[in-house]
This record gives sequence, structure tokens and C-alpha cells, in this order.
Amino acid sequence: MPIGFLSREVVHQTRLHLNSAASPFQTPVQRRNARAAKRDAVLRAAVQMFNERGFHQTSLDDVAARLGVSKPTIYHYLGNKDQVLLECVTIGLNQLIEAAETSHQSPGTGAERLAAFLQRYAEINMDDFGRCVNRTPDEALCPESRTQFRTLKRQIDTAMRGLIEEGIADGSIAPTDPKMLAFTLAGALNWPARWYEASGSQSPEQIARQLVALLGHGFIPR
Amino acid sequence: MPIGFLSREVVHQTRLHLNSAASPFQTPVQRRNARAAKRDAVLRAAVQMFNERGFHQTSLDDVAARLGVSKPTIYHYLGNKDQVLLECVTIGLNQLIEAAETSHQSPGTGAERLAAFLQRYAEINMDDFGRCVNRTPDEALCPESRTQFRTLKRQIDTAMRGLIEEGIADGSIAPTDPKMLAFTLAGALNWPARWYEASGSQSPEQIARQLVALLGHGFIPR
Repeated sequence: MPIGFLSREVVHQTRLHLNSAASPFQTPVQRRNARAAKRDAVLRAAVQMFNERGFHQTSLDDVAARLGVSKPTIYHYLGNKDQVLLECVTIGLNQLIEAAETSHQSPGTGAERLAAFLQRYAEINMDDFGRCVNRTPDEALCPESRTQFRTLKRQIDTAMRGLIEEGIADGSIAPTDPKMLAFTLAGALNWPARWYEASGSQSPEQIARQLVALLGHGFIPR
Repeated sequence: MPIGFLSREVVHQTRLHLNSAASPFQTPVQRRNARAAKRDAVLRAAVQMFNERGFHQTSLDDVAARLGVSKPTIYHYLGNKDQVLLECVTIGLNQLIEAAETSHQSPGTGAERLAAFLQRYAEINMDDFGRCVNRTPDEALCPESRTQFRTLKRQIDTAMRGLIEEGIADGSIAPTDPKMLAFTLAGALNWPARWYEASGSQSPEQIARQLVALLGHGFIPR
């Protein structure tokens, strides 16, 4: 019965078409994407409110209200306020760690690789999640989250010292105590997380470029 | 009656002696000094606890308990928690302002005066009240106190930019945007308020000297 066979094919194809585009039910992939998009929206709203008002002055009710959802929705996607904060700072710290890895694998002298890392480091600190890393004192997190926060921060410090040591070894960075230089650079480039204003006339990229040049050349004329 | 006269003299002298040293009642000066000493003790305990635990994690009950006094005693000397914090950061900021004024009136080139200020600036940031200035986000204070906090911080920023401009004018500082250089220096030298540990092997004076040298000379070899 070829006709019957064909009809079944058509029916099958129609069903497939319905499933992938017009069904009121989402596919597993769609569900996963929708969930990820909602989670991202919660994180973005939370990090911006923490940065604007301070962590202690922001409740998850405030975040829920801004998104027009209920507080249990936030719990569902991210957990309690401490977990939301930990997730925000972890995103920022992972951006910094990634920047360190990219610079470490780049060609050029040690000083050039360090400068490339510092450029990204400063830019990230002027962005939502990097700002949050810098505006979050260790004490704001509960003891377990704090340990995780500190471990990631230490990883970045280690990466920065590594880049400095490579530069000293190849002669492109002036001999100095890598620990003290890392603290100096980190301090100067964490600071924009506090003073940078998106409404200003210069982009994060332009600001970062000036800061890195000042740190490279020093304020005493050459 | 010479004997009677002499006795009256002795009685009078004895009274005077009692008044100035052995009276159970304090003189106005003694009262003022005792009050100042108690106020200082409260401030020192409060600032150290804010720095150790964070402002939000410290209650005035904790401060009172450390001093072995009651919470109303703290209210009596300093007011509520916001007022205690404002007083702590004001002391730190006044130390920084004083350092700027002293450097401004010193002899030497602009770069030398700037370096002298930066040295003190970094040292103060490793001391109790300066640490508190750096560990206090604006949002921790109530709106009126916040305005006062920001006004004092702006004063220090203005003083630093002034010293930079003088150095650029006399050629001892490399031509640059004074605002960006001030941010770079402040960031690098505020940072020790977070990482400095009194138990470390180097003194604040030694650490400050290295940081200022790195900022003056830059990490690229000369």
C-alpha cells in the first residue's frame, strides 16, 4: 500500500515540523537555553544592583522586583543571596583568569604579555562582574564561599606574578620583588572598579591604556 | 596670735594639696582628659573591629563587649553606629589631608614633594583609621555622612592632583593627565589597606618606600 506508506511519511514529517517550531512544548535544547537565559538575566540584574547599592543594601526581593519575578524564582535559578553573590564574583574572577591564560600563551616579551594582561584586567574591572569582584569585601561572603573567593583571587595573583617573573627573566621588566609589583599593579587597576562611570567621556579600553602606560613608564620623566 | 595664723596656713596648704591630687572629684581639665581618653578607646576598638570583621558584621554591642562597657556608654561618647564609622573615617581622612598639606609646604621639586606625600599616604593606609577609610564603601554610610565622607575624599584627590600639576610644571613629573595619574597612584596605595598584615616581615614604612619607587620608575627598565 504505497499511498498509505506515503501518507504515514507526510504525517510523520508534519509532526516533526510541529515539534520543532510550532509545538507549545519546548524541546530539551530550548528548555536548557531558556533556563540559561533566565539565569543570566537574574545574575545581570543582581550584579548591577549589588554594584549600585552595595551588597548589604540589596535584598533578593529588590532583584526580583526589578525583573518582575518572585523571590522563589531567584532561589530556583541561583539559590540564596550568598550563592548569588558567589556566582557573580566567580564570573568576574573567571574572566580575569581567562585573560591571564590568553596573555600567557601570547607571543612577545614578558613585559608585552604582562601589559596585554593588564589591559584586559583593567577593562574587566570596569565591567559588571569585575566591578563586583572589587566591591565585595571577603567578609560579605559566608565562610565557605569566602574560601572559594579567596582561592580564585590567589590564582590571579599567582598568574600575575608569573608574568612578572617571565619579564624579569627576559630583561623586559626591571628587576624588582614580583610580589610588590603585582600588588602595585593590581591596586592601581582594581581601583577603576570604584571610580569608573559609564557616563564618562572615555571608554574602559581608553582608560585602561593610559593606566597601563603610566604603570609601565612611571611618573618620573625618562 | 602667730601660732593660730600659722596653723591656718598649714590647713590651707593641706586643702590645696588635697584638691589638686587626692580629691575624689576631678578638676575640669582631668574630666576633659578622661572623657577624651574614653572616646579614643571606643574609637580605637571600633575601628579595629570594623577592619577585622567588616562594618556590617560588627555591632556596637560587640564593641562595648570588647571594652567591657555598656552600649549606652558608646552612644554617650560617640552616638550611633553610623556616627562611630563617620568619626573613624574622618580621623583617617584628616591624617591624609594633613600629610598633603605638610608635603605641599616642603622644599624640593614637585616630584619630591609628591613622593613624600605618597610615602605618608601609603603608611596611613596601613594604619587603623586609614585602613577603615579604604574598607568603607560609600554605601555603608547614611546619606548625610556619605556626603561628608565624599567631600573629604575629594579634598585629598584635589591635593594629590595639585602636587602632580606642580611637578609637571617644574619638569620633575612626566607630562600626563593629572587626573589619571592621581587615580593610578591612589589605587596602588589604597590597596595595602586590604593586603597589609601587621604580622608580615616588612614595616609599613618599608612597604610604602617600595611601592612609591615602583610608581615613580615604572616596570619597564630605564
